[in-house]
Amino acid sequence: MEKELAELKAKVEALPGTGNKLTMVIFSGSLDQQLAAMIIATGAAAMGMQVVLFFTFWGTAALRDPHRHVKGKTMISKMFGFMVPKGKDALKFSHMNMAGVGPAIIKGLMKKKNVASLDQLFDVASQLAVKIYICEMSMDLFGFRREEMIDYPNLEVCGVATMLAHAKESSLQFFI
Amino acid sequence: MEKELAELKAKVEALPGTGNKLTMVIFSGSLDQQLAAMIIATGAAAMGMQVVLFFTFWGTAALRDPHRHVKGKTMISKMFGFMVPKGKDALKFSHMNMAGVGPAIIKGLMKKKNVASLDQLFDVASQLAVKIYICEMSMDLFGFRREEMIDYPNLEVCGVATMLAHAKESSLQFFI
Amino acid sequence: MEKELAELKAKVEALPGTGNKLTMVIFSGSLDQQLAAMIIATGAAAMGMQVVLFFTFWGTAALRDPHRHVKGKTMISKMFGFMVPKGKDALKFSHMNMAGVGPAIIKGLMKKKNVASLDQLFDVASQLAVKIYICEMSMDLFGFRREEMIDYPNLEVCGVATMLAHAKESSLQFFI
Repeated sequence: MEKELAELKAKVEALPGTGNKLTMVIFSGSLDQQLAAMIIATGAAAMGMQVVLFFTFWGTAALRDPHRHVKGKTMISKMFGFMVPKGKDALKFSHMNMAGVGPAIIKGLMKKKNVASLDQLFDVASQLAVKIYICEMSMDLFGFRREEMIDYPNLEVCGVATMLAHAKESSLQFFI
Repeated sequence: MEKELAELKAKVEALPGTGNKLTMVIFSGSLDQQLAAMIIATGAAAMGMQVVLFFTFWGTAALRDPHRHVKGKTMISKMFGFMVPKGKDALKFSHMNMAGVGPAIIKGLMKKKNVASLDQLFDVASQLAVKIYICEMSMDLFGFRREEMIDYPNLEVCGVATMLAHAKESSLQFFI
Repeated sequence: MEKELAELKAKVEALPGTGNKLTMVIFSGSLDQQLAAMIIATGAAAMGMQVVLFFTFWGTAALRDPHRHVKGKTMISKMFGFMVPKGKDALKFSHMNMAGVGPAIIKGLMKKKNVASLDQLFDVASQLAVKIYICEMSMDLFGFRREEMIDYPNLEVCGVATMLAHAKESSLQFFI
């Protein structure tokens, strides 16, 4: 019976979906969805959860550093570089963008109401050790290079399997 | 060994992500996504799950009461009040909105095929004790006040931490 | 005490949200979201997870067979048949669609970089026994019939309760 108890203990330890951990796939590159994602991420980290973010497709836009330029890109990479928003300040709203007036008003309001900006949320995230991964395939398709991306502690490029391994361990997962 | 068993029992009780509970973050204010969310919510409640909904950003539109007006708002709050759809009947489709013809056709079809409308789904939700929270920060940004929102049993305003506490306990979570 | 251990064992077996299983609700009919969903689905299946997909609303577009036509539809069904993209090759991007140029470029790039196309991802999914359900209510609303949908092993039409039963067992769930 002692053996059975030990076995059950080991089983409980390894149960998928029960880690005190949040994994989010951030697919959207819209300012509103990115804000929601980072508010949830920093909130969870502040509550003591381990937090893992996987930025993919349009979501990668938020991780681009607007001040970095890379030479020798193909024409198609240049085109994507031009069309996908370059960094957090260039993100648009999914609704009511109104040629950029919407984000400007919301950003002004957020400042007035002491709500953290996306930049500040990334700062908080780094202080709370939120782990950020960028999707390898998206980088490859859009022709983005690691050296064009923002400085963030331990920012890593990975594939879908790494994200899934984290997500499987997490008690909480969202696709945004 | 008895002590070990008791400890393991307590651990199993407290395992994150194993409650018979669904938590949904409803971010989208589109009619199609709101319908999907409320169909999932009422379905889960009907199956005996505890259901918690957290309406945030554009999602808050569905909780506005079109017949309530509040005086003394700032100009920016008035502007948001005008731009964010005022209540369930004013929601648009994310695709194929066709100047409102899309929603009208779908609503007509839903009636014909005996699919519950969004209004009916909220009624069912309240009967099945689905808990609804509105995101405090979104209310604040858009300048919405509690007294402008619909009557719904125990409708509460809360922050992201309350949502996360529910989500962490839930075996099932979605971000819509 | 033996009885207590047996009870705890049974409880652990039945804990919601701990199955080695992924359930995804695929709501979006955009090519980019569908690619993300199928990359996650096939990745999870390759890692040994049981995978269940529930295609609903616009997501059903990807399951339409462009070569199948059904007679005797109502005018509204014909209209939806015309407006909802007919099959995987007709899907558009959620951003940067640029009159179809965006998808064409991405598809070209995916081929060049040896990333699987949506067609190939469905093939892989079927080989890895990924289960696909179509939402009954969506089929009914859009006037789609089972015989217009693609051939996929054990493709089934079901309601939201079936999806929820799978999701509740799954350690991992996404709404895309």
